[in-house]
Amino acid sequence: MKNILIIGVGKSTSYLTQYLSEKAASKDIQITVGDINESSISELERTYDNIKGIRLDIFDRGQREAAVQNADLVISMLPARMHVEVAKDCLAYGKHMVTASYVSAEMQALDEEVKKKGLVFMNEIGLDPGIDHMSAMQVIDRIRDKGGKMLLFESFCGGLVAPESDDNLWNYKFTWNPRNVVVAGQGGAAKFVQEGTYKYIPYNKLFRRTEFLNIEDYGKFEAYANRDSLKYREAYGLEDALTLYRGTMRRVGFSRAWNMFVQLGLTDDSYVMENSENMSYRDYVNAFLPYSPTDSVELKMRHNLKIDQDDIMWNKLEELELFSREKKVGLKNATPAQVLQKILEESWSLKEDDKDMIVMYHKFGYEIDGKKSQIDASMVVIGEDRKLTAMAKTVGLPVAMAALQILDGKINTPGVQIPIRREVYTPILKELEEQGVIFREKEGPYLGYNPHNVAG
Amino acid sequence: MKNILIIGVGKSTSYLTQYLSEKAASKDIQITVGDINESSISELERTYDNIKGIRLDIFDRGQREAAVQNADLVISMLPARMHVEVAKDCLAYGKHMVTASYVSAEMQALDEEVKKKGLVFMNEIGLDPGIDHMSAMQVIDRIRDKGGKMLLFESFCGGLVAPESDDNLWNYKFTWNPRNVVVAGQGGAAKFVQEGTYKYIPYNKLFRRTEFLNIEDYGKFEAYANRDSLKYREAYGLEDALTLYRGTMRRVGFSRAWNMFVQLGLTDDSYVMENSENMSYRDYVNAFLPYSPTDSVELKMRHNLKIDQDDIMWNKLEELELFSREKKVGLKNATPAQVLQKILEESWSLKEDDKDMIVMYHKFGYEIDGKKSQIDASMVVIGEDRKLTAMAKTVGLPVAMAALQILDGKINTPGVQIPIRREVYTPILKELEEQGVIFREKEGPYLGYNPHNVAG
Repeated sequence: MKNILIIGVGKSTSYLTQYLSEKAASKDIQITVGDINESSISELERTYDNIKGIRLDIFDRGQREAAVQNADLVISMLPARMHVEVAKDCLAYGKHMVTASYVSAEMQALDEEVKKKGLVFMNEIGLDPGIDHMSAMQVIDRIRDKGGKMLLFESFCGGLVAPESDDNLWNYKFTWNPRNVVVAGQGGAAKFVQEGTYKYIPYNKLFRRTEFLNIEDYGKFEAYANRDSLKYREAYGLEDALTLYRGTMRRVGFSRAWNMFVQLGLTDDSYVMENSENMSYRDYVNAFLPYSPTDSVELKMRHNLKIDQDDIMWNKLEELELFSREKKVGLKNATPAQVLQKILEESWSLKEDDKDMIVMYHKFGYEIDGKKSQIDASMVVIGEDRKLTAMAKTVGLPVAMAALQILDGKINTPGVQIPIRREVYTPILKELEEQGVIFREKEGPYLGYNPHNVAG
Repeated sequence: MKNILIIGVGKSTSYLTQYLSEKAASKDIQITVGDINESSISELERTYDNIKGIRLDIFDRGQREAAVQNADLVISMLPARMHVEVAKDCLAYGKHMVTASYVSAEMQALDEEVKKKGLVFMNEIGLDPGIDHMSAMQVIDRIRDKGGKMLLFESFCGGLVAPESDDNLWNYKFTWNPRNVVVAGQGGAAKFVQEGTYKYIPYNKLFRRTEFLNIEDYGKFEAYANRDSLKYREAYGLEDALTLYRGTMRRVGFSRAWNMFVQLGLTDDSYVMENSENMSYRDYVNAFLPYSPTDSVELKMRHNLKIDQDDIMWNKLEELELFSREKKVGLKNATPAQVLQKILEESWSLKEDDKDMIVMYHKFGYEIDGKKSQIDASMVVIGEDRKLTAMAKTVGLPVAMAALQILDGKINTPGVQIPIRREVYTPILKELEEQGVIFREKEGPYLGYNPHNVAG
């Protein structure tokens, strides 16, 4: 009997625990879930009779070490910055580890010792990062096996609201950490390569330089560039590719509207606003508009953002009640971004029966024997409800699957790693397919970077 | 006989040394100038027979301490971050100190000990900061002496090119550190108060929310907001003023054109561009525009920035040769801002006989016995040539005058300070007037913050 310790219960663990609970008997595993929140643990224990909950404060070293010692493998679903203490314990006691987070410098620094002890520390095995790595590398390896040379790789992902629950003008609801959405794209220009040329997009243009994508049965999407399009160039072996681009997907029109917030300065997280607590929503937006003894906030806003009277952009702002005198911010010493997040959460939270939707889209351009071709691969997953989200499914299942594969000894190359090797992605993508996480591929002539997709 | 040590010879010291040299005999002072650059020293010694030069490496502690020990007062014209080591020596050996720089936290921390030793450490006594403090406080104190209550304080300053040397489309040349101009406004929103309301302007709107100002005989100017409009609220005693605004002056049209650089991302100093050294100017701007297999850089630029065919904005870009295939950047690992600075320096440097121009403008709104009034005070200084600049004059003279007043014992309140007290500004402003640094005042009805001055 093997013991799996899951640390941290949250939005992303519903499918993770469900899947492991179902496999527990056949795989002969014992599942323990540790969290500081006792009600989350007892709810889990009520739902699954083969899951044991323990109260675990990860800042209590003794508690943490004891829990890790009892496990054979630890899944950390904590916020990324908290992984490393757990990782050090796993290293000390010789336990495998799985996370869905980006490999931090501190995590990477453990690589040599992890290898020496023959342990697998699998990271970035959620959705994005995670399924993106695996699905991309599967196609790239297939192309290379045929003697192909990669010319282009573009990859897009988005957490959205399912069409059947899409009932606001932004065609968007929060399905993950809202804060990440509000501050997305800040802290430096987006950098990528198009047809051999390095390109940079400053934050203030990021949401105006979108690309468009079509997914059969789901219609048109747009994407804005991620800051880190070149991050996996070496890991994927794409040093010679002419085009490398990674982006975040939204429904068409979202970015143009979001750009209004950027232009006004509402997404700034670098300073605290005076008297934020007692401001109305109207006071909040007015703080970013010029003073006038006569003109209304509405007119100043229309003028500032050049919004025509019949422009749908205006309705998007009104839908958020941004001009309300009654609605109060109620947050002490808040940054503009924190206030904006609060306002958006009121409008963009999933309702009880709302379904979310995950979309992923890869483009692979390549050349074999002088012939250029392109593969477009797309994946759509629709959630069940506010709890069993497509997000939780696509983040949690690969984590759970990787954990079992490691315990089975099927994933056994030691080290701090991300899921880009066949040994890892082959079994997991296959199992994900069985769970409805399916990529549809379309092969066609090489288009290269398509200028008709460029706006602005 | 008293000894003054000036550390650092540069753009701003021409008038400083000239003035002190002229006063040396009557004031019975000995002037020593220390700099690491021996040719600067010997040039000074050739020009003035009563100035002694010494080679001084301020990172050589022994050299530095010896030089300070021989002085009664030290003027540091070093870059601001280097003052504090000199300040510590001055404290140790009981010497007064004068700088034109902002008071750093490290400098402020010396205050108590400086007071204990009865020393005067006068800072921010150049132009801006410097003359702005003195000229503003003189009017504010006068208003208060009459029982007035301050309602509004707006203050603007700019280093520009004189009308007779104004021969480019930007109506601008560098007269000070070009880097500060290129990165101006970055690192957080501009914050100020208008009619009792806090207002915030994000960087991407900073150059579009300008105010307009008229100066008799010199025409129309514009100003964009400084980041720190509230910095001297307490120092000036303006806690109850309804409007506080500080801005940087340019000729009308500069900011709208500069905004093109901001929108493109050319002013970003936070990352290094790939292969910057070998880029042409054209490659440089193209890196911020979408890829296209067919469209020209010019058309992409016009489209991106929405520049009409007959818009003067376009000529401003062409004047800088921004689309040149021949001109090379030639800077290794440069940030966008560093490349932009290089390009601008080629077009915006003062020629041998070019004259610069300093403009300063204050608005004071106040109330006495229920009657509201306003004083507008403006100052214009025109330079002689590329060396004897208005900038060097307005920075250097107040420093020199303060030094002599301190040695004379007329400025004698000890402590780390800025020139906001009568004892300091009265004699110095009077002497500056004799040197042609004259404020013209206009009194009129209180206008408050004027909405007709707002652009978008």
